[in-house]
Amino acid sequence: MSGSGEPGARVDAAALRRFTSAVLRTYDVPVEHADLTAEVLVAADACGIDSHGVSRLGLYTLKLERGLVNPRPRPRIVRETATTCVVDGDNGLGPVAAVLAMDWCIERARDVAVACASVGHGNHYGIAGWYARRALPHAMIGLSLTNATSLVAPTFGRRPLLGTNPIAVAVPAGRERPFVLDMATSAVSAGKLQLAMAAGEPIPEGWAVDAEGRGTTDPLAGFGGALLPLGSTRELGSHKGYGLAVVVDVLSALLSGAAFGPHCLSLTSELDQVANVGHFFAAVRVDAFRPFEEFTAAMDDMIRGLREAPPAPGHDRVVVAGEPELDEEDRRGREGIPLDAGTVESLRGLAVERRCEDELGALLGR
Amino acid sequence: MSGSGEPGARVDAAALRRFTSAVLRTYDVPVEHADLTAEVLVAADACGIDSHGVSRLGLYTLKLERGLVNPRPRPRIVRETATTCVVDGDNGLGPVAAVLAMDWCIERARDVAVACASVGHGNHYGIAGWYARRALPHAMIGLSLTNATSLVAPTFGRRPLLGTNPIAVAVPAGRERPFVLDMATSAVSAGKLQLAMAAGEPIPEGWAVDAEGRGTTDPLAGFGGALLPLGSTRELGSHKGYGLAVVVDVLSALLSGAAFGPHCLSLTSELDQVANVGHFFAAVRVDAFRPFEEFTAAMDDMIRGLREAPPAPGHDRVVVAGEPELDEEDRRGREGIPLDAGTVESLRGLAVERRCEDELGALLGR
Repeated sequence: MSGSGEPGARVDAAALRRFTSAVLRTYDVPVEHADLTAEVLVAADACGIDSHGVSRLGLYTLKLERGLVNPRPRPRIVRETATTCVVDGDNGLGPVAAVLAMDWCIERARDVAVACASVGHGNHYGIAGWYARRALPHAMIGLSLTNATSLVAPTFGRRPLLGTNPIAVAVPAGRERPFVLDMATSAVSAGKLQLAMAAGEPIPEGWAVDAEGRGTTDPLAGFGGALLPLGSTRELGSHKGYGLAVVVDVLSALLSGAAFGPHCLSLTSELDQVANVGHFFAAVRVDAFRPFEEFTAAMDDMIRGLREAPPAPGHDRVVVAGEPELDEEDRRGREGIPLDAGTVESLRGLAVERRCEDELGALLGR
Repeated sequence: MSGSGEPGARVDAAALRRFTSAVLRTYDVPVEHADLTAEVLVAADACGIDSHGVSRLGLYTLKLERGLVNPRPRPRIVRETATTCVVDGDNGLGPVAAVLAMDWCIERARDVAVACASVGHGNHYGIAGWYARRALPHAMIGLSLTNATSLVAPTFGRRPLLGTNPIAVAVPAGRERPFVLDMATSAVSAGKLQLAMAAGEPIPEGWAVDAEGRGTTDPLAGFGGALLPLGSTRELGSHKGYGLAVVVDVLSALLSGAAFGPHCLSLTSELDQVANVGHFFAAVRVDAFRPFEEFTAAMDDMIRGLREAPPAPGHDRVVVAGEPELDEEDRRGREGIPLDAGTVESLRGLAVERRCEDELGALLGR
């Protein structure tokens, strides 16, 4: 999470990547894995998803320090067909096995049009959309799913039995920017509860239940209970968000043999056990179906049709999935990445502890 | 929709299929297409999804009568790789091209592990889950998507620009019954508004907006406006339901070249134009990833873990996707299919008009 929300510093993305990689390397992480993990974390900061960026570096390093993540994994393909594979992540940092699997899909889809990979023995892999977007330069549609620590109660239940299990889909367009959906299958992420708690504010009904399974507007009670699936209540369709979370678990964990449901221990809990997170990736070559330019012209039409649609009262216009993050990426590319005071403090602590003061100085300009 | 809701008759599934097929054949539909369409429609009635069953036969036949659906289509594969195909449905009854495409996926996945198909020039294909379930006996996971008449407003919009675009996923289990998710990506289907309207009851907030884009509890105003995506409001995540609806449209229509968004004219509107509906199907062979028995044992564990989880106050237990429909299938298999008075009346009208009185007599036992 992004800490206190107070302003801290505005930093350059490249310097933030260098700092993050330097810290990771002090835990015996090889440079290529450290650079990759830094790239994924800073990509979240760069597009405004601060909850999944370097504010989490301390959690990643805590797992390394406790021996819960393997700093020098050898992820490998343990089962393979022309179109599918299963990757054993060897309990390394999440992005290491995840990018191997996504890139395998892209490489294979070049030949066989559609390919998918399920990953076991993984760890928290950052933002789901980062992997889906890798398909875009290859004129492919990308899919990225992961399970996660169970925080979400199934409809009619009161105990957290499912992760926020995100679904990310990236679709190339032509003149328009790509469509990039990256969504938790819960109504909201845990980060939103943490922000409300920090601000001392109530949460809307429909986000969480307390430990007894009753709807609550108290973020603390929600933390002691569970998040609600997308749809919030049965009447508004929470069985659908719950069902989608199960599908993500099936493809990510049941196909790969990773831990599923309440057995999955991702980043934000159980800091004394190995996580065994599961992921699922797919790449689909568009021109297997239709000439790429025809497809992207239709995507452009669809995107423009949505963006130019008449807005509801109180809104400027309809937004297309991915637009806010791509806008923020542009803005932060020009202006730098704002880190709040809490995150700066945590990075400073890591820098001192791991003797990365030089990289911190380069980052903060002192 | 299922008409007035008053009790009408309780009928045998086989007799209902025979009647439905007989009516369709009077429109020059070949017997195998008529039987298939009857099978899909009655499958909906058999599992309690009355809105998608024979109550819609009159809409199917109206399209045939007006020449808007081709009674004798020759659906064909117009583009093909080892793992993908595009099917041109030749504007026949929806199930004809849809089953061809789904079965192509299953057949191919036997060899290549994963296969998918996008269908254009289709029509309303009934319940999405019927196609996904076809993968189950083959030890595969099945996926079935379709776009539909635009009834749903995107988040921040007020005009219906997307269909209720369902997602169906069927996953085999071992001792447990399969997991079958079959969900609209809107908060609710149009059928729920129609039921509320018939009953003269208000609808919950979060289902629909009026023509000005303001939330409404008046089902009639909702019909004049738009349904809301799953999530209902931005605060509760409606941008996610909206995003999923776009993904369904991309795979179903943009890959196949079918009509998308507001251009798609499915069953319940625009009864003067050809629909050009798009669908998407996929089949994934489980044992490409993991021995089938290992996978199904894990599915059993997952399903039992959910079913036996502590319930929230006011509920008996957590329900797993597909359970209510499979229960209803068992019940109606024993007791027959209840048709309400409105549906019986509409079938009677069709029987007289199409001279299928004998089949009606066999159905109603007179």
